[in-house]
Amino acid sequence: MKSRAAVAFGPGKPLEIVEIDVEPPRAGEVLVKITHTGVCHTDAFTLSGDDPEGIFPAVLGHEGAGVVVEVGEGVTSVVPGDHVIPLYTAECGECLFCKSGKTNLCVAVRATQGKGLMPDGTTRFSYNGQPIFHYMGCSTFSEYTVVAEVSLAKINPEANHQHVCLLGCGVTTGIGAVHNTAKVQEGDSVAIFGLGGIGLAALQGARQAKAGRIIAIDTNPAKFELARKFGATECLNPNNFDKPIQEVIIEMTGWGVDHSFECIGNVNVMRAALESSHRGWGQSVIIGVAGAGKEISTRPFQLVTGRQWKGSAFGGVKGRTQLPGMVEDAMKGDIELEPFVTHTMELEKINDAFDLMHEGKSIRTVIHY
Amino acid sequence: MKSRAAVAFGPGKPLEIVEIDVEPPRAGEVLVKITHTGVCHTDAFTLSGDDPEGIFPAVLGHEGAGVVVEVGEGVTSVVPGDHVIPLYTAECGECLFCKSGKTNLCVAVRATQGKGLMPDGTTRFSYNGQPIFHYMGCSTFSEYTVVAEVSLAKINPEANHQHVCLLGCGVTTGIGAVHNTAKVQEGDSVAIFGLGGIGLAALQGARQAKAGRIIAIDTNPAKFELARKFGATECLNPNNFDKPIQEVIIEMTGWGVDHSFECIGNVNVMRAALESSHRGWGQSVIIGVAGAGKEISTRPFQLVTGRQWKGSAFGGVKGRTQLPGMVEDAMKGDIELEPFVTHTMELEKINDAFDLMHEGKSIRTVIHY
Repeated sequence: MKSRAAVAFGPGKPLEIVEIDVEPPRAGEVLVKITHTGVCHTDAFTLSGDDPEGIFPAVLGHEGAGVVVEVGEGVTSVVPGDHVIPLYTAECGECLFCKSGKTNLCVAVRATQGKGLMPDGTTRFSYNGQPIFHYMGCSTFSEYTVVAEVSLAKINPEANHQHVCLLGCGVTTGIGAVHNTAKVQEGDSVAIFGLGGIGLAALQGARQAKAGRIIAIDTNPAKFELARKFGATECLNPNNFDKPIQEVIIEMTGWGVDHSFECIGNVNVMRAALESSHRGWGQSVIIGVAGAGKEISTRPFQLVTGRQWKGSAFGGVKGRTQLPGMVEDAMKGDIELEPFVTHTMELEKINDAFDLMHEGKSIRTVIHY
Repeated sequence: MKSRAAVAFGPGKPLEIVEIDVEPPRAGEVLVKITHTGVCHTDAFTLSGDDPEGIFPAVLGHEGAGVVVEVGEGVTSVVPGDHVIPLYTAECGECLFCKSGKTNLCVAVRATQGKGLMPDGTTRFSYNGQPIFHYMGCSTFSEYTVVAEVSLAKINPEANHQHVCLLGCGVTTGIGAVHNTAKVQEGDSVAIFGLGGIGLAALQGARQAKAGRIIAIDTNPAKFELARKFGATECLNPNNFDKPIQEVIIEMTGWGVDHSFECIGNVNVMRAALESSHRGWGQSVIIGVAGAGKEISTRPFQLVTGRQWKGSAFGGVKGRTQLPGMVEDAMKGDIELEPFVTHTMELEKINDAFDLMHEGKSIRTVIHY
């Protein structure tokens, strides 16, 4: 079938809005009509050419919501008409990782997903007869996309797709890291570095967890109003201090915070976040995605004196098991999604969404088809 | 009173065996007659001058056992005649850290201990009228030493001091890291990097925890026989492979080990240990003490894909609460200490003990008075 799509033909080039060909779903696959998709920094990272694993030409996009159109052979968990969120972290329920009870990092489709292919090693997309690659198992920048059954969370059909599409990546990543990775408890102190979509979501998670002191850090003070609305008790601009921000936080708190979260992808901030955490038990969670080849570092003494350095992907959330409940939470207002959607636009204007992001003017732009 | 002591008069110089003056214990302090003391790499590190926090002249030594001779005002937990192990990690039971239930890193005497002083800010040692500093709150290289009451574990008087002195540092550090920091469970896979005293102790801890696969790594294959005796199921010499040892371990195990332990103090090995741990949930514990200014590094992707980087000091063991039980374990044979004691000698020969260590010929030399 034909589908409108924003195709990344090569690194560093604007997306091109074209009509691509989408093949029907094969065994274990599902054809989804995407209704809405967020534009995330990870899409921009890959498009820029800085992502060493970026593959072109490809249909990017991984933060969407839609409706099932057709299912391939053997698909049992969804039927046409079901509302779904595509998952870049699949959940097969059967692999070593799914069965471990310790992680959400399912490996069922990992190898082919990383190569821009469906699990059988081929692509469903083409343009003028040339194959186009998939992206993160989702490719939500096409009105019609094909995803693996294990990469779909079935959600409440009453949910507002313009909002819950954000649970496909950023918001879930931030909230999940607080609950699943750090396991923040009532009264704990928290520092959140970076107040983009993920940082603001982590703030909401900290508020849900009834954290005590919640310190929000960003170099752009324009972010502080929304941060306070989402639960920040204090906001710090590192540019206002003549010493490293970790020293400021240690002095403010005595011994550091119980939990810190890096929500930017900057390795220097990752170090600052670790070194802001409490001697004896503080833990620091890396959520942001760093540039290619970048490394984190610190003195081992930081760990020997009781700090823990962790990371989180998709907030440690098991997509098919847990995401439907988070959609319910959003419908009840326990997760606020509307404030994240600063802009909406049609697919044809998607390059404007990237410009807004690069200029720091948007939290999330949501594309509708 | 007079006391035989091995004094470090300056960095890089041999210890000098002299008779020093030891003042009586003040309030909250205890005079201990040391019977035995191990010679640990940390003593050598400080003596070398590489330790930026090293202070001279000082009485080094921190891995001892002895008998209480006299108690200062207000001391209630020990009386003369009690058998004790001095603790470089105190346990006051009352500070923020002791009360947290999350860490053994008591701060009761931390500030003064780091300056080589007793909690009241003075020293009990002098030589020819010149003050001599304390070391790690223990100074076991003096036959008579003064320590804070909170820095003493009271132990079973039947225990063999030549063996249980090793529970004052290395053996407890290795075993405790396995149980308290990593919390190794039955059947878990473990990799132990470095087969000195701490690594061999960690092996015993892994065996106690009924770990499944226990991989021991050292560049000196002479260590492998004892490693196997202590529970290693496989021994690897990194020099026998033409690829990084973390790649070897990932290939051997499929996805890496559940727990890895760095028992050397080498920041490159710390990285290898982290990167040998299992995607999704592997954790790596730094036990070794790195040189001044050294930093650990890795790609943040290692943490984002579920690995955790931790550290451990004194094995996470609360000395006054837990060490007496470990002494009982040693008396029952559940902890084997005798194989660690490769050499014994009198205090007068202590510089030979450092030579043996530097030449890699000893696991532990135990000094007796």
